[in-house]
Amino acid sequence: MTAAPIDFYFDFSSPYGYFASTRIDDLARQYGRSVAWHPILLGVVFKTTGMAPLPQIPLKGDYSWRDFERTARHHGIAYRRPSNFPLPTTQAARAMLWLQNHHAADVAVRFAKAVYHAYFVDDINIAEPAELVKIAAALDIDANAMDAGASSQPIKDQLKAEMEVAMAKGVFGSPFVIVDGEPYWGFDRFDQIEALLKSGTPTELRAVPSPDLKEKKPA
Amino acid sequence: MTAAPIDFYFDFSSPYGYFASTRIDDLARQYGRSVAWHPILLGVVFKTTGMAPLPQIPLKGDYSWRDFERTARHHGIAYRRPSNFPLPTTQAARAMLWLQNHHAADVAVRFAKAVYHAYFVDDINIAEPAELVKIAAALDIDANAMDAGASSQPIKDQLKAEMEVAMAKGVFGSPFVIVDGEPYWGFDRFDQIEALLKSGTPTELRAVPSPDLKEKKPA
Repeated sequence: MTAAPIDFYFDFSSPYGYFASTRIDDLARQYGRSVAWHPILLGVVFKTTGMAPLPQIPLKGDYSWRDFERTARHHGIAYRRPSNFPLPTTQAARAMLWLQNHHAADVAVRFAKAVYHAYFVDDINIAEPAELVKIAAALDIDANAMDAGASSQPIKDQLKAEMEVAMAKGVFGSPFVIVDGEPYWGFDRFDQIEALLKSGTPTELRAVPSPDLKEKKPA
Repeated sequence: MTAAPIDFYFDFSSPYGYFASTRIDDLARQYGRSVAWHPILLGVVFKTTGMAPLPQIPLKGDYSWRDFERTARHHGIAYRRPSNFPLPTTQAARAMLWLQNHHAADVAVRFAKAVYHAYFVDDINIAEPAELVKIAAALDIDANAMDAGASSQPIKDQLKAEMEVAMAKGVFGSPFVIVDGEPYWGFDRFDQIEALLKSGTPTELRAVPSPDLKEKKPA
């Protein structure tokens, strides 16, 4: 029996999502878990929550830029402030969905990591389909098929539907991680995610969920 | 020579502020530092940032209640969801300023911790001046003088001015901590605060600030 994958939601324009993307697979693997990667669009979420991108909020904006750099340094993650921020990430998200539909899961994940690295380390404008094609080609992916597929109606419809599912599950930010029904918002919840994974026996051996998961839910 | 105190900003209605209040003194003491406690009013800040209390934001609201409980449990901090949330905390903030003006700093801090405990453990309505009087009396504070002082014009003016200063320094949330000019928002930045305090030599022995503090500031 295999434990259910950990759900990992992220927007390609989210610095904290990028930080999380560098750690989520290793964290899961340590506890015998796999990760389901879900590209989302924060812009769609913000319409529901009435929020705005962090750097555009008064006072919070300057702090955010500082915190992105400091948090990257604290965790030893490569990071360079992108020239264009935030960016539309619709094409990148659709390209990833297409890859997930047509290739083994690890191909899409390698593409996602390369897109994040291009944006947050190499300062490449990942809103440009041509840049996404270059990134895919460098990974030996059939980049032109991906480019065409990402613009197809079925993939557009799928991304919309994926966003509906994500919001129905309560996803409202990036990164957002759901482990066995328990939701975690933010890279700064990785310590709590690890505590959950560490607690109790491996999920595949549990007859009932660990008590930690059941007790003290909010009223 | 004594190192400059760590500035700790908090709203009495902020759960993460409460969590931080249970740790900030110990953390500072470990590195030979003191803490300056600054009660603030998030309502005033929200007018500037256009934000709203977390539990009132769609999707984020339910998550927040869950995260308050889970974070308390993760850190072993007593917490019970208050019946009234959020509350006006103007009177509590003013009472604390009055105590800081008329007593040794530790008296005001003991009062602050008791107010937080009353709200987030004993579910007491700390918006009620009468409850604040009871809390102060239990600490052998001249509660009636405090109550009168908290409603005086000079204290009202002082709180307004303190809020102006805080926002001029970039404070936009609770808890908010400033260490040697470096700003940290959130209880989940305590690991980075500790790393900063741990890095480099004690401040009082530094000829120049630690390189960690200078390098790689956001452009």
